[in-house]
Amino acid sequence: MRTPLLAATLALLIAAPLAARQPTRIPDAAITQASTLRASALADPTAWQVLESLTTEVGPRLAGSEGDARAVAWAQAKFRELGYDRVWTEPVTFPKWVRRSETLEVLGAHAQPLRVGALGGSPGGTVEGEVVRFPDLAALQAVADGSLAGKIVFIDYTMQARRDGGDYRNAGGIRWAGPSVAIQKGAIGFLMRSAGTSLSREPHTGNTGFAPGLAPIPSAALATIDAAQLARLVALAPTRVRLALDCGYEGEATSYNVIGEITGSARPDEIVLLGGHLDSWDYGTGAIDDAAGIAITMATGALLKPLHPARTLRVVAFANEEQGLWGGRAYAQRHAAEVARHVIAIESDFGAAPIFGFDSSARDLQPQALAQIQQALAPLDIAWLPKQGDPESDIGGMTDLGTAWAWLGHDGTRYFDLHHTADDTLDKVIPQELAQNVAAYAVFTWLAAQADGGFGSAPKPAK
Amino acid sequence: MRTPLLAATLALLIAAPLAARQPTRIPDAAITQASTLRASALADPTAWQVLESLTTEVGPRLAGSEGDARAVAWAQAKFRELGYDRVWTEPVTFPKWVRRSETLEVLGAHAQPLRVGALGGSPGGTVEGEVVRFPDLAALQAVADGSLAGKIVFIDYTMQARRDGGDYRNAGGIRWAGPSVAIQKGAIGFLMRSAGTSLSREPHTGNTGFAPGLAPIPSAALATIDAAQLARLVALAPTRVRLALDCGYEGEATSYNVIGEITGSARPDEIVLLGGHLDSWDYGTGAIDDAAGIAITMATGALLKPLHPARTLRVVAFANEEQGLWGGRAYAQRHAAEVARHVIAIESDFGAAPIFGFDSSARDLQPQALAQIQQALAPLDIAWLPKQGDPESDIGGMTDLGTAWAWLGHDGTRYFDLHHTADDTLDKVIPQELAQNVAAYAVFTWLAAQADGGFGSAPKPAK
Repeated sequence: MRTPLLAATLALLIAAPLAARQPTRIPDAAITQASTLRASALADPTAWQVLESLTTEVGPRLAGSEGDARAVAWAQAKFRELGYDRVWTEPVTFPKWVRRSETLEVLGAHAQPLRVGALGGSPGGTVEGEVVRFPDLAALQAVADGSLAGKIVFIDYTMQARRDGGDYRNAGGIRWAGPSVAIQKGAIGFLMRSAGTSLSREPHTGNTGFAPGLAPIPSAALATIDAAQLARLVALAPTRVRLALDCGYEGEATSYNVIGEITGSARPDEIVLLGGHLDSWDYGTGAIDDAAGIAITMATGALLKPLHPARTLRVVAFANEEQGLWGGRAYAQRHAAEVARHVIAIESDFGAAPIFGFDSSARDLQPQALAQIQQALAPLDIAWLPKQGDPESDIGGMTDLGTAWAWLGHDGTRYFDLHHTADDTLDKVIPQELAQNVAAYAVFTWLAAQADGGFGSAPKPAK
Repeated sequence: MRTPLLAATLALLIAAPLAARQPTRIPDAAITQASTLRASALADPTAWQVLESLTTEVGPRLAGSEGDARAVAWAQAKFRELGYDRVWTEPVTFPKWVRRSETLEVLGAHAQPLRVGALGGSPGGTVEGEVVRFPDLAALQAVADGSLAGKIVFIDYTMQARRDGGDYRNAGGIRWAGPSVAIQKGAIGFLMRSAGTSLSREPHTGNTGFAPGLAPIPSAALATIDAAQLARLVALAPTRVRLALDCGYEGEATSYNVIGEITGSARPDEIVLLGGHLDSWDYGTGAIDDAAGIAITMATGALLKPLHPARTLRVVAFANEEQGLWGGRAYAQRHAAEVARHVIAIESDFGAAPIFGFDSSARDLQPQALAQIQQALAPLDIAWLPKQGDPESDIGGMTDLGTAWAWLGHDGTRYFDLHHTADDTLDKVIPQELAQNVAAYAVFTWLAAQADGGFGSAPKPAK
């Protein structure tokens, strides 16, 4: 019987020391080429064209919807149009959630409608009851189980804007955990202030879940402005509301990870993995979340193809990220045996504002190569920010298995003004900023593809 | 038989010269008092409290709706709470228009929903057809009558932001005239880019009408962002859409002008008329349109009451401005014989951004008194802008009959980001700016109430 300690020791013996013995280095010619590439990427219209095409021609693409199916066809056609050498799909199956309608009505002396969006995964249903407001999740957790029988919980936490988007952990955490806690307390419905920083009337959707054994209750987010209105009303007098959601799970759906490859000229079996996710929430056209990531990574492959990269570039448009990383998990399951072949992985799933920071899991193992990459990124105002990054969303399946990762961090200060709302549309992306993103991805990808040596990808022993 | 020329001559003989013979002058004591008043108004919370109360406790108040009826009760209670000497209502009857639902679906290869709002006065109905895009109204007018049979017209005029809001004449003109022109051309539906400058997904509603003899067609405005999306889709390929509106006229409704008076201490029969409108569109809570006007004018009366103004201050919360100035017209009809008693009238119906300009119909007749008022307004950064103002909305009924008017012009640069959309909510009003508005109205109203002499109000002869 293996212990975790033994497993860790084995990993050290097998993987890390081997890689550490040979410091990875990026050839001078590749570094020189990166300067030219950086300049041409900044002037290249491909990413914008891809972004406009996906958001206009497909529009919203909730996983499992007709729009999602069109997005899969679109992505295959777009990879081919951009000259990718190989294009294929891999199926991803998941529970299908649909949204039809959602209303919240304040009843009584101050009757008025408030803007609300069902949380992904919420069941449908109509509930009516008095609102009990809590400033945060801890305040809800503090009341006695069963003490909110017949009530509708309202968690009124105001998310703060930050460059790293860090407060989404708190606000998104309420979205994820809040409904189950509300059920334990006896509530018949769950409301929260949107997990975002928008000042429009658009509610912020996003996935929730319910702890095993609990009977799910209708769960929704108020637009930030409507949450403020409900808070004022609750402060005036006891306030009853009627929450009516028509939404829920309807069997299973199958969508696809869509994959495009530029075959490596020297080491075709070694893969630099790039990703974004193809699905979006249904309210907007998913421009920043995540058509931008699709556009940045697709354009990166197209830009590098004429340079004949040594390694294979694999761009994955992941299926159903929004409802539980289904595409990323399916990819990892299918490619679990190829962890070491995936030399390094990177994903763009945090919008299209300027990239300000760079980090990698190889920070201790290959500091020299990372320093070379950072120097090539520096003219784009990108700083080396060790231990500030992490593998974004869908590549997490592979990095959990041991694939090395890199992070190019977008400025997230205004990301949550738009994220998961109807305001996530093409007009919010600034072409020059998107071009900076592409330049960063192109430089990183090129140098990773040309590096003599790897970044530490190796299967992790089972935990 | 009187000719217009004779009538005009008579008017000159009767009204203007009489007033002109005695230059109106504002007593020094009143001017001194105005300085104190200006300072106290800037620090007074009343207007904000009124604004918050109306937008929170009543919320949306579409004319004829349950919210509108609550607003009438609210206004009477609020006048009393603020210490007004007399409070009463006057009925206003109008056709009742209701909105239930509205959707626009792009059909075919690029299927997706777009955000749309029925124009006030539109009939309900579902129409499906190919979209024909026109850059402006003139382009639609230029095509042959009947040539758009079975089509859905889309006028894609982009309104420009201006301090005076002047481009609303063009964009609002399309809203008013466009549907009838579309019908003449044979169209089965009418779409337009919202008559506003918003960059959120919220469509801009507002009233339309149909020329006599034409069969009304479903008519709606796309959110500006959705209009841009439809323009891109139409540029890609012929585009069919389905417009489904559930809305329309349903008999008549009666609402009320709600009137509060501070009785004049010296000349109680002479009235300084202040106004705003109590109704709103249904999407937002009508904070800038026009709870702000109600708040500014109600607070003005409350601030002046302890000063015992010489003339009576009459504050009117007009009914149903939005659907055709019904309250203003009813007021003028009922008070037509009292034109001269209304010494001067002013309305606030252009938001709550800083007031930058002052004008009056008395500019040629009473330049001295107006100069005195302007000097008292100058510390608030308000300039004398002769011939740049006009009587706002509801007081137009009385000024058309001959009542003198004044204008305190709000900066309108960002007004149409919010106007008639769901984004017109309390959080958009900046308390310090609202206080500047109140200070301007209080100073003007006080000096008009104390002036020795009038501003030229006199019945105009029938045209």
